[in-house]
Amino acid sequence: MPDSSAWRRGFPPPPEHRIRFVDLTTLPYPAHRWLYCHWREVVPSVRVWRGRGAPRPLPRAERDLGGFTFDDPAGGTCTLNEALLRSATDGLLVLHDGKVLFERYLGDLQPHLTHRCFSVTKSFVGLLAATAVHDGRIDAALPVAHYVPELADSGWGSATIRQVLDMTVNLTFEEDYEDPEGDVVRSRRAAGTLPYPAGYSGPQSLYEYLLTVAQAGPHDDSFQYVTSNTHVLAWILQRVTDTPLATLLSEKLWQPLGAEEDGDLMVDPDGIAEAGGGLSVTLRDLARVGELVRCNGVVDGEELIPKAVIQDIADGADRQKFAKAGYREFDGWSYRNQWWVSHDAFGAIRGLGIFGQQLYVAPGAGLVIARFGSQRIAVDDALEALLMSAFGSLADLVAR
Amino acid sequence: MPDSSAWRRGFPPPPEHRIRFVDLTTLPYPAHRWLYCHWREVVPSVRVWRGRGAPRPLPRAERDLGGFTFDDPAGGTCTLNEALLRSATDGLLVLHDGKVLFERYLGDLQPHLTHRCFSVTKSFVGLLAATAVHDGRIDAALPVAHYVPELADSGWGSATIRQVLDMTVNLTFEEDYEDPEGDVVRSRRAAGTLPYPAGYSGPQSLYEYLLTVAQAGPHDDSFQYVTSNTHVLAWILQRVTDTPLATLLSEKLWQPLGAEEDGDLMVDPDGIAEAGGGLSVTLRDLARVGELVRCNGVVDGEELIPKAVIQDIADGADRQKFAKAGYREFDGWSYRNQWWVSHDAFGAIRGLGIFGQQLYVAPGAGLVIARFGSQRIAVDDALEALLMSAFGSLADLVAR
Repeated sequence: MPDSSAWRRGFPPPPEHRIRFVDLTTLPYPAHRWLYCHWREVVPSVRVWRGRGAPRPLPRAERDLGGFTFDDPAGGTCTLNEALLRSATDGLLVLHDGKVLFERYLGDLQPHLTHRCFSVTKSFVGLLAATAVHDGRIDAALPVAHYVPELADSGWGSATIRQVLDMTVNLTFEEDYEDPEGDVVRSRRAAGTLPYPAGYSGPQSLYEYLLTVAQAGPHDDSFQYVTSNTHVLAWILQRVTDTPLATLLSEKLWQPLGAEEDGDLMVDPDGIAEAGGGLSVTLRDLARVGELVRCNGVVDGEELIPKAVIQDIADGADRQKFAKAGYREFDGWSYRNQWWVSHDAFGAIRGLGIFGQQLYVAPGAGLVIARFGSQRIAVDDALEALLMSAFGSLADLVAR
Repeated sequence: MPDSSAWRRGFPPPPEHRIRFVDLTTLPYPAHRWLYCHWREVVPSVRVWRGRGAPRPLPRAERDLGGFTFDDPAGGTCTLNEALLRSATDGLLVLHDGKVLFERYLGDLQPHLTHRCFSVTKSFVGLLAATAVHDGRIDAALPVAHYVPELADSGWGSATIRQVLDMTVNLTFEEDYEDPEGDVVRSRRAAGTLPYPAGYSGPQSLYEYLLTVAQAGPHDDSFQYVTSNTHVLAWILQRVTDTPLATLLSEKLWQPLGAEEDGDLMVDPDGIAEAGGGLSVTLRDLARVGELVRCNGVVDGEELIPKAVIQDIADGADRQKFAKAGYREFDGWSYRNQWWVSHDAFGAIRGLGIFGQQLYVAPGAGLVIARFGSQRIAVDDALEALLMSAFGSLADLVAR
């Protein structure tokens, strides 16, 4: 189990355990475990206010699932406890029929600490944007440039909002997390979430960066996972509503959900939210969002997200277009409104973020799983398969 | 009334109303009004957690004091409303005998938003450090270097903790807020709260900066207001307790006080709190701290700060040493444990921060006043005198 307990500790931290923004690109691995629970201590962020009310209680019906055994896709079997350790889990919360079945924290995470969601952030934005489409504030059939004329000459100029929502925009952007000079790194530098290299003269804001991404071919042919799509989507949403994303998240989700803690949302040098991966929330509040989705957008009789929006996500998108992207571990899946859709018997859908962030919602099993992790590499197919097997087996268990 | 409503608004903000960290030294004035309510959106910060409980209610016994008239030291009279406008007030909250007498928000501030306290932060640190002295964890008679050997060769090497608490350390540091290349600016650059100039090769953390400050003459001769003293004090406190300031503030004050919102505490590149001016809290929570002090450290029967610590502050320090510093508007005052002590009939003590931050506690009148502002210049003697007259007259009014 990677241990980050020595990092950024002490007054001052010793040089070998410093975590400074200027060193973010070269920090050795275990440091990240601290970082994912403390992002706002390294970059600017805006509060996602939970409001004044008491948190909505999470009823408990706990079961010790640590010894629960499931098939390891790599061979043999594995217990849940073993899987948590192998996958550098920071926290796991399992809700069944809205009650806490299992809750566990490891590493630096605690119930009241926010953890970076990475791309699960996209699924939050998807809920809000799809709601704006449902409400008629955004016409998903219109091109992006209708709402954001600045993007007319970019790769999104002729793409429709629907294509952005479902990530079928054909862009020159390559979502490669390991390329030290690739599109992902360049986007992060512009967003202010990675330091500039010496002599940097690139874009100095998220929106400036988006103007540099070009169209690579005809849109709507296949799924192409590009984080910048979510930055574009949030740009449209914020322009149409004239409201910052943090305020929308607070008003539409955090306050009415009865979230337990404020969220922290990273912002770029202009104060624009990093909507593709910049949200940090507590594990319990992440689970509350999953539970909202499981309950078709309704909490305590109040519809926060239209049922039709949840149904539209559950129905998924074109599986052929998705298949062309070649995600072996998501055979038969699709991607709709910034959610990964399994089309399985439980109707499972997922929010997914690099380094092991997951929000798994399986309505057919009454199951919601929120999971934060600090894996060593951004996308680890073996760990992904292990957790998929764990979650699927848990769904089988509780659906029995 | 300076209006910052156009600043950092829009997606993206127009170039003329951008607020970027790299431009902090050159932003025109009204922008600051936005900044003081949104510091965490520009620099890294750590949460001061309020805990899980419901906020402690602030009972209300409101009176419309807007038309309350008092003597204007510049001549004639002034109403409270006029004074609020003239001094670019962001929020004013008056408690009498623990009940809200008057509460008003202007500019960008709202009840749930945190506002930067600037040097009122010092008074929070003073409460914690003086408590640690009272509890025997810190011996105030010992030299700084006893607890922080790194500072042995700095200006603080031979100074005692008591001298740091009361700011009678004799340092080469000049607390001049208007000097664009002075000690204050150099300290802020090191703390990461101002951008580096081109080719910067100075210190890259608060503690590195402190090592550059030298002794200017014999200590303990006169009061010398130097923000770095509080950085040293917080260094000692954090080293002795092995606990970050944000955690101490949460455990010792924010949680037991029943604060309404989490606080935001700016941190330097190593994650070290900017203890001299980096705390942002809501107006109501600032007032709660004032009320705690008014009640001798006791809230609902629980002693959060030892009565002896509050009494020691109220007793003040050496007024002759204070007088040598030449603060004309504080004739007869002293400075004790990071609080300004009036020695007046009401036993008034104050936390004071640049640009108009105030926490005024007048136990003899049962009065606590919390005040946030966005004045144009850091220290404005005329506005200071105006507010002093207002607060003193309010104390007379309620004490009648």
